[in-house]
Amino acid sequence: MDRFAEYRAAARALGTDAVALVPGANFVRMMGQDFSTSERPTLIVVPVEGTPAAIMPNLELSSFAQLNFPGEVFDWRDQDGYDAAFAALAAHLPLSSLAVEGQTMRVFVHHALAKAYPGLAITDGERAISGLRLVKTADDIARMTRAIRISEAALGEVLADVRVGMTEREVEARLIAAQFAHGAEGMAFSPIVAANTNSALPHAHARDYALQTGDALLIDFGAQWGGFCADITRTVFVGHATDHQAAVYQTVYDAVEAGLAVTTAGVTAHEIDDAVQSVLEASSWPDRIRTKTGHGLGRQVHEEPYVMRGNHQKLPAGAVYTNEPGLYDTAEFGIRIEDDVLVTDTGYRLLTTFPKTLTVVG
Amino acid sequence: MDRFAEYRAAARALGTDAVALVPGANFVRMMGQDFSTSERPTLIVVPVEGTPAAIMPNLELSSFAQLNFPGEVFDWRDQDGYDAAFAALAAHLPLSSLAVEGQTMRVFVHHALAKAYPGLAITDGERAISGLRLVKTADDIARMTRAIRISEAALGEVLADVRVGMTEREVEARLIAAQFAHGAEGMAFSPIVAANTNSALPHAHARDYALQTGDALLIDFGAQWGGFCADITRTVFVGHATDHQAAVYQTVYDAVEAGLAVTTAGVTAHEIDDAVQSVLEASSWPDRIRTKTGHGLGRQVHEEPYVMRGNHQKLPAGAVYTNEPGLYDTAEFGIRIEDDVLVTDTGYRLLTTFPKTLTVVG
Repeated sequence: MDRFAEYRAAARALGTDAVALVPGANFVRMMGQDFSTSERPTLIVVPVEGTPAAIMPNLELSSFAQLNFPGEVFDWRDQDGYDAAFAALAAHLPLSSLAVEGQTMRVFVHHALAKAYPGLAITDGERAISGLRLVKTADDIARMTRAIRISEAALGEVLADVRVGMTEREVEARLIAAQFAHGAEGMAFSPIVAANTNSALPHAHARDYALQTGDALLIDFGAQWGGFCADITRTVFVGHATDHQAAVYQTVYDAVEAGLAVTTAGVTAHEIDDAVQSVLEASSWPDRIRTKTGHGLGRQVHEEPYVMRGNHQKLPAGAVYTNEPGLYDTAEFGIRIEDDVLVTDTGYRLLTTFPKTLTVVG
Repeated sequence: MDRFAEYRAAARALGTDAVALVPGANFVRMMGQDFSTSERPTLIVVPVEGTPAAIMPNLELSSFAQLNFPGEVFDWRDQDGYDAAFAALAAHLPLSSLAVEGQTMRVFVHHALAKAYPGLAITDGERAISGLRLVKTADDIARMTRAIRISEAALGEVLADVRVGMTEREVEARLIAAQFAHGAEGMAFSPIVAANTNSALPHAHARDYALQTGDALLIDFGAQWGGFCADITRTVFVGHATDHQAAVYQTVYDAVEAGLAVTTAGVTAHEIDDAVQSVLEASSWPDRIRTKTGHGLGRQVHEEPYVMRGNHQKLPAGAVYTNEPGLYDTAEFGIRIEDDVLVTDTGYRLLTTFPKTLTVVG
């Protein structure tokens, strides 16, 4: 199979002469290997017709040669700068329009393209290009599942050891070490370990705060394995949970279930979020809503589909999304529960299997 | 002290109305906290005159409020999109020119700015903005030194355990686990563990290849601690080293020493690279040169100054660079030795202290 065919088709659908990929999730999917996103522009241009071409730092040529790239490669050395390589690309492959990955390509590469191709119309093709990763293959799912199992094994160990007096940073350090001990190849993102009122900040940073009896403890993290990400959140209670905490927890739990109940191939992202948000809005705490239901998960920890009202995109079988409603009050605590959900023709399959009933630790 | 003063001055020096910072090294230096670089644009604009303004995802408002930002904050929710927030920013803070971090800002933010500010001249101010991090403070050096000590402790443990038959991936997994066990808060980059001919690829990926007697084993990695990066490379030999391997190793070692010998405040990046490259060029293996001497090191693993011929930038006391010459032959092996070097008024201080004499392991 021509590994460039889908990208040619994307360019055609976008009405551009070509698409350009920079190192990252789409690049590794197309080429089977990633390159570093350093100060050195690295680029593959796939035109609608004809042979692709590449811009490569000279020191990557030997690595790139192993990938059997069929087209011209324009390289440069650090001390010479990269303008000549871009100019040579422009002479070799004239373009009047180009779709790029807007959320991945950085401005200095955009500027180098604009300089080499005066008048080039550069459009953001992120959605079409990354959208090619929407439906996961069986191999993708196997890799993601392994990343999730590693994460869940680590979480189980850490929660078994949590004690009053342990700091958020200590819990974070244990969680990181446990992931790698269980075979993680990386972390999908820097973990969130947030207790007490800090749990009400959706993207909190771990502090030296020592856990107290009665704290909510929110842990949101995920390992990476085989190029795929896990993303799981559990909120537990230290020592005991009050009736009020339990009631808020149950509301978030019910919202998760409501999202799952409508999940099946063909449902829209809007419909899932609507089911989830409706539960939160009908509760006693609609003012504690801060986020949409979730996002796609795969090679990137945030990708298509974005599960929110107004996104009427239909989810096909093979899409994976995070179902992660929460309720947040910075005067009290935050609760978030997050599962990774595979959409199937008959409904869904939960990739995360870690228990999500109310849990007291320590 | 006004934490925005240096950035106003940078905008003034660049001749632009303002600078814009997105999450990353400069952002965390200015604000004391980072935000995630997700699909949600997050931006602070510092004008030459007047109060800064920010674009923030709604779900980050509580976190951002803790930073005592003095200006207007324009937020939006995922389901509404961010165009209105950018339009409100443009109405509040008119600009005709803006300097951005070209190697950090992604194209979708560039496009959102261009849409909200028709005719805005967006220039790449990366060098001026990131250049503010060129001279490290004593606290910066203390953090980086801790990251380096963690890395060196991990490397020592791993090299003591390397055996014939162990795969590159196994060595990599041990190295990662050891860093976190020693207190790493993250990894500066995904480690390079490359044996035999793979060591000749400057940015190789670990494979299932099992180490054999006589292999060169190149390990390039670094921990992150307190927001700062380590970056260290050692190349060792498995079982024994041939005279030929030892001779190539000695050449690279001599190149490292030549770079150190000329290092003192006021030396140019060109002069260091020239001293290093001259040793390699005068050897029997000038055709094995693939890279410049190195790069700056700090909050980012690659930053100013880039140590290469043609860069006549003077290095002040307090600059830190990597001295990492190498010789690479994909038919045989590659050798790289990398130290982290602090420039001082009287010469230099090696931040890395791990032995670099020829080492046989296993």
